[in-house]
Order: sequence, then structure tokens, then C-alpha cells
Amino acid sequence: MNALSQLLGTELPLIQAPMAGVQGSAMAIAVSNAGGLGSLPGAMLTLAALREELARIKAGTRHPYNVNFFAHHVPTPDGVRDAAWRATLAPYHQAFGLDVNAAPAGPGRAPFSAEAAEVLSEFEPPVVSFHFGLPDATLLARVRRWGAKVLSSATTVEEAIWLEAQGVDVVIAQGLEAGGHRGHFLSHDLTRQLGTFALLPQIVRAVKLPVIAAGGIVDAASVAAAMSLGAAGVQAGTAYLLCPESLASPVHRAALKSEAARHTALTNLFTGRPARGIVNRVMRELGPISSMAPEFPLATAAMAPLRAHAERLGSGDFSPLWSGQNASACQELPAAEITRLLAAGLQAQPS
Amino acid sequence: MNALSQLLGTELPLIQAPMAGVQGSAMAIAVSNAGGLGSLPGAMLTLAALREELARIKAGTRHPYNVNFFAHHVPTPDGVRDAAWRATLAPYHQAFGLDVNAAPAGPGRAPFSAEAAEVLSEFEPPVVSFHFGLPDATLLARVRRWGAKVLSSATTVEEAIWLEAQGVDVVIAQGLEAGGHRGHFLSHDLTRQLGTFALLPQIVRAVKLPVIAAGGIVDAASVAAAMSLGAAGVQAGTAYLLCPESLASPVHRAALKSEAARHTALTNLFTGRPARGIVNRVMRELGPISSMAPEFPLATAAMAPLRAHAERLGSGDFSPLWSGQNASACQELPAAEITRLLAAGLQAQPS
Repeated sequence: MNALSQLLGTELPLIQAPMAGVQGSAMAIAVSNAGGLGSLPGAMLTLAALREELARIKAGTRHPYNVNFFAHHVPTPDGVRDAAWRATLAPYHQAFGLDVNAAPAGPGRAPFSAEAAEVLSEFEPPVVSFHFGLPDATLLARVRRWGAKVLSSATTVEEAIWLEAQGVDVVIAQGLEAGGHRGHFLSHDLTRQLGTFALLPQIVRAVKLPVIAAGGIVDAASVAAAMSLGAAGVQAGTAYLLCPESLASPVHRAALKSEAARHTALTNLFTGRPARGIVNRVMRELGPISSMAPEFPLATAAMAPLRAHAERLGSGDFSPLWSGQNASACQELPAAEITRLLAAGLQAQPS
Repeated sequence: MNALSQLLGTELPLIQAPMAGVQGSAMAIAVSNAGGLGSLPGAMLTLAALREELARIKAGTRHPYNVNFFAHHVPTPDGVRDAAWRATLAPYHQAFGLDVNAAPAGPGRAPFSAEAAEVLSEFEPPVVSFHFGLPDATLLARVRRWGAKVLSSATTVEEAIWLEAQGVDVVIAQGLEAGGHRGHFLSHDLTRQLGTFALLPQIVRAVKLPVIAAGGIVDAASVAAAMSLGAAGVQAGTAYLLCPESLASPVHRAALKSEAARHTALTNLFTGRPARGIVNRVMRELGPISSMAPEFPLATAAMAPLRAHAERLGSGDFSPLWSGQNASACQELPAAEITRLLAAGLQAQPS
């Protein structure tokens, strides 16, 4: 047990990365019961679903767990931009016999809110983590009220320093290798994003807080490497995607197990914000980063019917196949077993 | 001494990265005498200068050393593209009172050639390394004749497998954090480039050869991290840039020591190929990657007079300020001392 696991109240300084849309309470419970910190991603849950999932976790484990939320600003819908995006995707809709204008508007992902905080307060989760910065001070104080530890992701040294100044308890250094959404919030310039080898030690040097390494953490060796770069602990996501507890779709699992997983890219096509996924047809054809994609999370609406249609045909051509840059170490093992395999690297000490 | 240092004939499995334009024989000698493998970058040397530098190394150390060359194909000059590039840079030339058309044509960087091999054969360097793939089989056989070990950089798993099939002795896994030119040669799609945390272990698993880690290797902790990811050794470049043996210009040194070094980007503005440097005025104003830049190395000619003019005024606005993503660990110490500091991380073992 090190300082970080004492802070989190866990046996291991190891967090299962919250992965909205591909896992829920079952994985969180399995990891928390295995000594890590299981995470429930709240971003895509209705308040009712959030309450249900939290109730399952409460029933499933007595160990600490984490609930994660996005902390973005809800964008003002932009009719012109939305129309341009629908026009970009219209040929695909036509080819599938779908009506692009029938696609629902609406975000699909809500930022942390007073209502969500109200639901959380019924359960008082011991850890709450955020992505894309932090919610406003009032909301943050709400979460602090029951003593929750607060974590957030930094993708640059500047973001880590900012988060420390806001009083977070732990900074997650999200290296460029990581799968899913980049957590940047101070600058949208992607050239500022750093690989784990460069980001982690610079953040460790820049802040006094414990720093968790994320991005490329897939096995004991990478955990050991992160610890020798000064991490207080690690966060792993992709490594858990093939677990039986994962909700990753069959096309997502197949992609992770294939040669295709060697080539990931940051793409804004699925939500409007850059996120790392396995390169598929729509990313190849439109380019992974498109200036046509509306602001996060408004790009989702017009893409969702294409995804649903293609997945019914067994195709991941329009699916966000989130993955880090090293899916080769993924194994089809229970989440508890993955946790133990990762934990074997934790004994490494900073040089 | 491990298998790699036995192969290289060095005390340490540690290579000083060849850095064309910013170091020469003095640094190579210092590192080789300190137990590492010093490198002489040959890409920007005339044959006469190459011979002189090799003579200095021969006189300066009895230890093994490396000579490095680029292995690109010389592009056919494209008048239309060159004119477009000159037009892009013309406003800067005008502002400096320079004539953009007076800028010499010509590449500035030559690939490895029969003539260079002839010069090498006079000295029989024990190690020859290549960037951008490998020269043709005849040239490679030439180098093999005196028993030189051959190294080359891989930026993807596919490139590592290709290099192994060509019979190289060691693969250098060049993670995206690395400064200077990316070594990719099978695909020019930059989304295929991987961070060290993801690239290194995947290459280690894919090939039987010893793998050297490059990209983010700046101190003992990062060396230890690379070794625990399965590296047989490490290559460090940026860490040596502030040494007295470095030929980095005053503006380059000042940038490396400043906050500006926190923000690097891949840019093709200076040579036509993506290389990582500290973001400066011309990178900000034209964008770090420009479709106007002619093919490598033809972009250099029209940029060079701007660089020379600006540097005379003490400005790095038009200079390639090559740097990896972690210049914060650079120290103004002799190259031998940097070598010893890095070597302290070598005792780490793969997990």
C-alpha cells in the first residue's frame, strides 16, 4: 500500500479507467473487489440509470469505487454547422436507406450537473473523477461535502498545475497513447498533447500531488515503467476491454483482437472531440479529424443511426472503436485477473 | 554489460543519438570515451568534412562509435512546387530585405552514397546507423564488408519487422516523443506514429533483434522505464543538446532552456519531412505542417536565408529548434557526465 492507495482507500494504487458506453457497474465491482479502484462512467447514463448502477455497486462491493463525469460546457446548437454535418454524412444515410434528418438532435452526453450530484449524494461515492477539466466550484463543493476524493485528467503540464490550484486530490497524467477521449481543456491544440514518456515525468516534477499514469498502461511491464517514471499509481482502460465484464460490442471486440488495432488515430467524427479509436471506414473516408464535425458532443446525433445500422450488419465501419495505442496486450480474462496481472508491475520504485 | 553492449562493443547499451547540424565529432568522442556509443551524423557533411570528422574520432577515441546517414530517395525537383514554396516564404524574405529567388536551390542533405561508403571504408566505423529506412542492398553490403553493425529506426511495428527482414543487427524504436526527424519510411501517415509506451513493447514482441528505445529518454528514470518495457538499450538525443560539445546555436540553446520548450510539434517547414522542434514564429504562422513545403529535403533552400538572417539578429523565429517532448531534463553538463547520469538507469530489468 502506498500513499495513493491510502488516499483512495484501496489495496492497490490502480484505477480501472472509466469508459463511457463500454462498461458499467459489473466491471467497477469486479475491479474494486480485486483491490483496484473500479470506475463507473456517468457521462452517458440518465439519472435513473446512474442511480441503478450506483445501487448495484453499493450491493456488489464494500470497497472504494470511482464515479466519473465529463465536465464540458454544453455547446449552443448551431443549425448551420449541424446541417453541414448532416450533409457530410447524408450519402452514407442514403446508402443505408436512412433519412439523415430523422436522426435525433441532442447531445447524448451530459456534463456533471446538480441533478447528478443529488443522485451521487444518496450513495456518497468515495472517489469522483472528471474529464475535460472540472465542474464549477459549487458543484465541486457538493461532491466534497461527503468527503469524496476528486481526480481529474491533465494532458499537459499547464493543465496539471491548473488542477492542483483548483484543489484536486490526484492528477491523472493522460499520455497521448490513451484510448478514448483526450481530456484536454486549456488548449485545443493537439500538438500540445504529449506521449506518456514525456508527460508523466514533467507533471510529476511540476505538482506536489500524487500523479497517476494513463496511456499505454496495459501490462505489468508498462505499470513498472510508469512507476519508475515517478507515478504514484496507474490507470488502465484498453486492457479491460476484452473482459467478460466489458460491454464492448462484438464489432469492437473483433477490432481489438485484429491487426486493425495496430492503427488508431485521434478522431472527432463520433462526438466532436478528439478521441483515440481504431481506424475504420468512416475515419479513413472523411479523415479522422474533420472540420465539419459539430462541437462536442453534438456530432454524435447524425452518426448514431449509421453506427446502429452498420452494427446490425456486423460492421464497425461507423462505430467508435475506442482503443489505446497498444491493444496487443489485451486479454480475454476476467477483470479481477487483469487487475492482478497489472498489479504485478506495481512493486517498481522510482529511480 | 548486456547482449546489446556486447554486440556494439561498448561498456554501456547507450547510444548518443546522431543529430545532424547540432553536433559532430567532439560529442561522439566524449560519449564513446564515457562508455556509450557516440554518433557522428553524416547527413549534412560534405565528403571532405566527413573524412575530417572521422579522422578526429579515430584520433580521439579507441572505443566504438557510430556514423549515421539518411537513406531517403533524392526527389526530382518540382519547379511548380518550389515556386509555390518560395511564394509562401516571400513575404518574410521581403520583410528582411532578402530576395527569395536568390536562395540557392539544392537539397542540403544527401542520402548515403557510394562515395560516402568509400570514405567510411578508410575508417571502418564499427557501427553504421540509418534513418528513413535503409540504403539499397549494394550499399549496405559495402558497409557490411568491414563488419560494421547496422542499425536503423522503426516508428511502427511494420517497419521493425521490415528492418529485421533486411538483416539489420539492431532496431531503434523511435517513439513519437523524440526530437528531430521522424524516421518513418513505410507509411507517411502520421497517425501511425506511436508514443514510446506503446511502440517499444510492441516492437520488442514483434522482432527477435535487440531493440533500442528512443523518444523521451532524458534521465535515469526514463532509461529505467525503457529497460522495464523490454528495451535492450537506449538512445538519447535532446538530453545532450546543452552540453559544451553540442553545436546547437545560441537561439536553440535559449529555446531549450525556456518555457517555450514545453511546446514542440512535428513540422515539415524546415526540410519537407516531419521533424519535432520547439514551436516558433514560422511554425505558428504557417502551421507546423504545410502542404506547400516541397519534398524532403528541398524545403530547406528557401528557408535557410530566413534562418541565417534571423539568427544574426538573435532570433530563432525561422530556425529548426529540434527537441524531443521533454527538454525539461536537459542539463548544461559535459556529454560524459550526461552519459553517466543516463547510465544510472540501465540496471533496471524487464518485468
